[in-house]
Amino acid sequence: MNLNMHFKCLFIQSDGACMKLWGRDFGKAVVVGGLLLASALAAVDALAAKRDFEMNIEDTRITLVEKQQFHTFAYAGQVPGPLFYVDEGDEITVNVNNMTALPHTIHWHGMLQRGTWKNDGVPGVTQDAIKPGDSFTYKFIAEPSGTMWYHCHVNVNEHVTLRGMWGPFIVRPKKPTALEKTVTKEYVLMLSDWDSKWAAKPGFGGVPGDNYDYFTINGKSYPDTQPIRVKKGDVVRLRLIGAGDLVHSIHMHGHVSIIAFKDGFPLVNPIRGDTVLVGPGERYDVIFTADNPGRWMIHDHVDTHTMNGDRPMGGIMTTIEYDEIRNDENWYEWKGKKFTPNFYYEESLKKGPGIYTNDVFKGQAIQ
Amino acid sequence: MNLNMHFKCLFIQSDGACMKLWGRDFGKAVVVGGLLLASALAAVDALAAKRDFEMNIEDTRITLVEKQQFHTFAYAGQVPGPLFYVDEGDEITVNVNNMTALPHTIHWHGMLQRGTWKNDGVPGVTQDAIKPGDSFTYKFIAEPSGTMWYHCHVNVNEHVTLRGMWGPFIVRPKKPTALEKTVTKEYVLMLSDWDSKWAAKPGFGGVPGDNYDYFTINGKSYPDTQPIRVKKGDVVRLRLIGAGDLVHSIHMHGHVSIIAFKDGFPLVNPIRGDTVLVGPGERYDVIFTADNPGRWMIHDHVDTHTMNGDRPMGGIMTTIEYDEIRNDENWYEWKGKKFTPNFYYEESLKKGPGIYTNDVFKGQAIQ
Amino acid sequence: MNLNMHFKCLFIQSDGACMKLWGRDFGKAVVVGGLLLASALAAVDALAAKRDFEMNIEDTRITLVEKQQFHTFAYAGQVPGPLFYVDEGDEITVNVNNMTALPHTIHWHGMLQRGTWKNDGVPGVTQDAIKPGDSFTYKFIAEPSGTMWYHCHVNVNEHVTLRGMWGPFIVRPKKPTALEKTVTKEYVLMLSDWDSKWAAKPGFGGVPGDNYDYFTINGKSYPDTQPIRVKKGDVVRLRLIGAGDLVHSIHMHGHVSIIAFKDGFPLVNPIRGDTVLVGPGERYDVIFTADNPGRWMIHDHVDTHTMNGDRPMGGIMTTIEYDEIRNDENWYEWKGKKFTPNFYYEESLKKGPGIYTNDVFKGQAIQ
Repeated sequence: MNLNMHFKCLFIQSDGACMKLWGRDFGKAVVVGGLLLASALAAVDALAAKRDFEMNIEDTRITLVEKQQFHTFAYAGQVPGPLFYVDEGDEITVNVNNMTALPHTIHWHGMLQRGTWKNDGVPGVTQDAIKPGDSFTYKFIAEPSGTMWYHCHVNVNEHVTLRGMWGPFIVRPKKPTALEKTVTKEYVLMLSDWDSKWAAKPGFGGVPGDNYDYFTINGKSYPDTQPIRVKKGDVVRLRLIGAGDLVHSIHMHGHVSIIAFKDGFPLVNPIRGDTVLVGPGERYDVIFTADNPGRWMIHDHVDTHTMNGDRPMGGIMTTIEYDEIRNDENWYEWKGKKFTPNFYYEESLKKGPGIYTNDVFKGQAIQ
Repeated sequence: MNLNMHFKCLFIQSDGACMKLWGRDFGKAVVVGGLLLASALAAVDALAAKRDFEMNIEDTRITLVEKQQFHTFAYAGQVPGPLFYVDEGDEITVNVNNMTALPHTIHWHGMLQRGTWKNDGVPGVTQDAIKPGDSFTYKFIAEPSGTMWYHCHVNVNEHVTLRGMWGPFIVRPKKPTALEKTVTKEYVLMLSDWDSKWAAKPGFGGVPGDNYDYFTINGKSYPDTQPIRVKKGDVVRLRLIGAGDLVHSIHMHGHVSIIAFKDGFPLVNPIRGDTVLVGPGERYDVIFTADNPGRWMIHDHVDTHTMNGDRPMGGIMTTIEYDEIRNDENWYEWKGKKFTPNFYYEESLKKGPGIYTNDVFKGQAIQ
Repeated sequence: MNLNMHFKCLFIQSDGACMKLWGRDFGKAVVVGGLLLASALAAVDALAAKRDFEMNIEDTRITLVEKQQFHTFAYAGQVPGPLFYVDEGDEITVNVNNMTALPHTIHWHGMLQRGTWKNDGVPGVTQDAIKPGDSFTYKFIAEPSGTMWYHCHVNVNEHVTLRGMWGPFIVRPKKPTALEKTVTKEYVLMLSDWDSKWAAKPGFGGVPGDNYDYFTINGKSYPDTQPIRVKKGDVVRLRLIGAGDLVHSIHMHGHVSIIAFKDGFPLVNPIRGDTVLVGPGERYDVIFTADNPGRWMIHDHVDTHTMNGDRPMGGIMTTIEYDEIRNDENWYEWKGKKFTPNFYYEESLKKGPGIYTNDVFKGQAIQ
């Protein structure tokens, strides 16, 4: 789809999105792109206060697993959308260009929008939906801190559930808790459900009676997910985000899960367990100490969510691999698997605040 | 349906229900009805200890939204049923007259029924079901305090899920928590699910394979719900009640939700968040400070629960409107909406303990 | 099905399983079987540290309720499987013999498997699945304490959801909490869902679009469940285990439920309520004081989970009967019911640690 859009963009990235970034004091644009982006962002981190991003909504074909594709309306042409990793109090400006044939918005789920309610992204309530070919600029302060996300608020039954219109929005706190200060590695896991019968029918679907038959972490189903790689001694934070229509019951093997944050807020008394129920819209941050070298599953314990269509042992499932363990047993399904880093935005999150696109999640543009 | 019932009623209200009310010491009936009811109840509040109510179960046609009607077995001809707002320790007497063609009971969900187990309302376990044309008197002490509810316990899969046989039962505590003492406005939100194919088939439905396609707050779907109107500085309590068959994930925009009570009991450490998962039978009291003037959504984040049949943006959804904000933007869907107060029993709850019928929820009698 | 298996078993029980038990110091086999098992186990409790069990997986026909049967792959020919009630720190050895025609494993859900990750029971990740006719020995330390369970990890959508491949694994803590020390009676309730259309089709089912129509506690639906019998003054612990594919909302009448443990771990601040939402894989230990003689329901508040097929008032439902109350009212559905003890492993749990088979749960071998 080519709507022949015209909008001002100083720094066009390889993916067609437009990125601008200002440091707090010197107001100087930093041209960034690809791998350079990370270090650039890390470098200006301490100063960054204004974060400016330009994002297209694009008809995009993504692959859930193997041959199962889906027509999405993807933010910056990727599912999940770009990672917003910002500091509490940062001024966020996002100009959104709707390149699709249907109206959209962005709701910044969890952001308080103090004094900026018209930036809350609800069609018919806080703004008129962004029409095809139109743009809209959201401007707000990143508050409160924690694991947040963003998604379209138009026809959510289709656009959020079936069209991949969501991405992570992580706000680094001014005053981290003692527990989160110990974290050495962070991962974002967005959980979603899909009904394949609507895969090629944008503008339709997400109706009562739908039958979800694909289930994804960050838009991919096992075995097309990636392992979570840790080493002994790591303190790992999993940022679980319920981005779909169903409840997911995430079970981790071999470790004590500490449920430490709900919807971004620290629990006064974190809850220990091995399974955490994540409802639509909810976020839970689970922290565990990697003290048990081995190879472990983490998966949805809703058993039918570990399927790809009618084929068992897929869906919301991945492994935790320790560096200390060889993965060469013949029976390891992922023996010799090609590893693609940053599938959980773990590399981006190491680099500090910034707005990160991710080629891992790019789909194919649908003209 | 007219079963030509005969029962004793001293004070028949306009709606056909029969109400009696005694003060604690003088045992004198207070004749009440319509709007006078409220102030009368408020007046005797300090003394009231015995609360006596007569309630019919009636075949009643209610409208969920627009043209979607449903045949219910309504308590006092309304869905939800009358609000019981009583003090902890009050003696409750309810005489129930079954005017329908099917057996029913009332279970007072959450009431401990200490020493009164035969008033618990379970057919075949604590009583014989109330046959068509028969009556039954429930008598028990209101204990413990908190957000409770009542519902039929016969064929719950149909009568509770599809026939609207539920209402709120709020018990004011003798010793309120510090947090709840700060509350300035209270709202009851009962969440339910419906399958339209059974709308006109009383006695049938609520079976495995059913496909819920309507979703309601207090028996209505957006846009036939009402806004929650607050002013800056209010401390608002939402009493969420899972009255249906599904889990609902209630998300509020623009505010920090404090999940303060579960099933009526205060949490030792209230949980902050923006989304609360409400399972069938559960209640959560969410308290928030109205500190952010604007217009905000509150809705189910199960995306398909924001539909009316196959039409998006309906279901379990409403707005929070601040007095400080004009609602005249052309794009506000509810611009010029006629406001019907007391949709959340917010006016009744202001008046103090009493038993409140509500014309807002009245349906049409089915003869 | 007769695979004509050959394996070493010194002490074959009447049920075809093979049991061995060693005391801590003397390494002497204790021949146990049937009712003698219990006292034998209780006697060696203080010394027992190594617990050795041999368990077949067998094609077994069980009856959910009335005439509804189901083809399962049952551990030791029963659903739920044998109770493992062990002490924290015990060395567990289980030799599993797969007598069915499909591959299986056992995952010890909640066990940390410190240093023993290849005993975690995940096919393709920690081991090769146990092929038909093959055996596998699991060896691990019972850690941490609490309400755990075990289940197959092959094609969980079918094997766990539809084929009864699960059982309770209770680890007695070295340092019990003050609250659990007060407990006088304990009950295990494993919650499951079934789709009857797959009842006679082993190797198939558990796919998107399935329609669960039977719902069980410990493999049985009301009225084929058993009452929970208490006396005034008891402190009762219900160990709720989400063993199926759906979320269950367990509501208890007449008592304050204290949600005291999640996934085996004590909550710092137990949560009071009357309803607890149990997701797949989760466990909640609910403790209540039996201070209110009467006859009370405990049931799933997902209304359609109280059905047997299309017939209401079945499924996940039972009563709590007080010794102080006569059960002779004509309208009591279970008046004159034949009581079968140990349906909740309550008798086994009284006897202290041990590994308990249970004739209550035995099905018929399918040749």
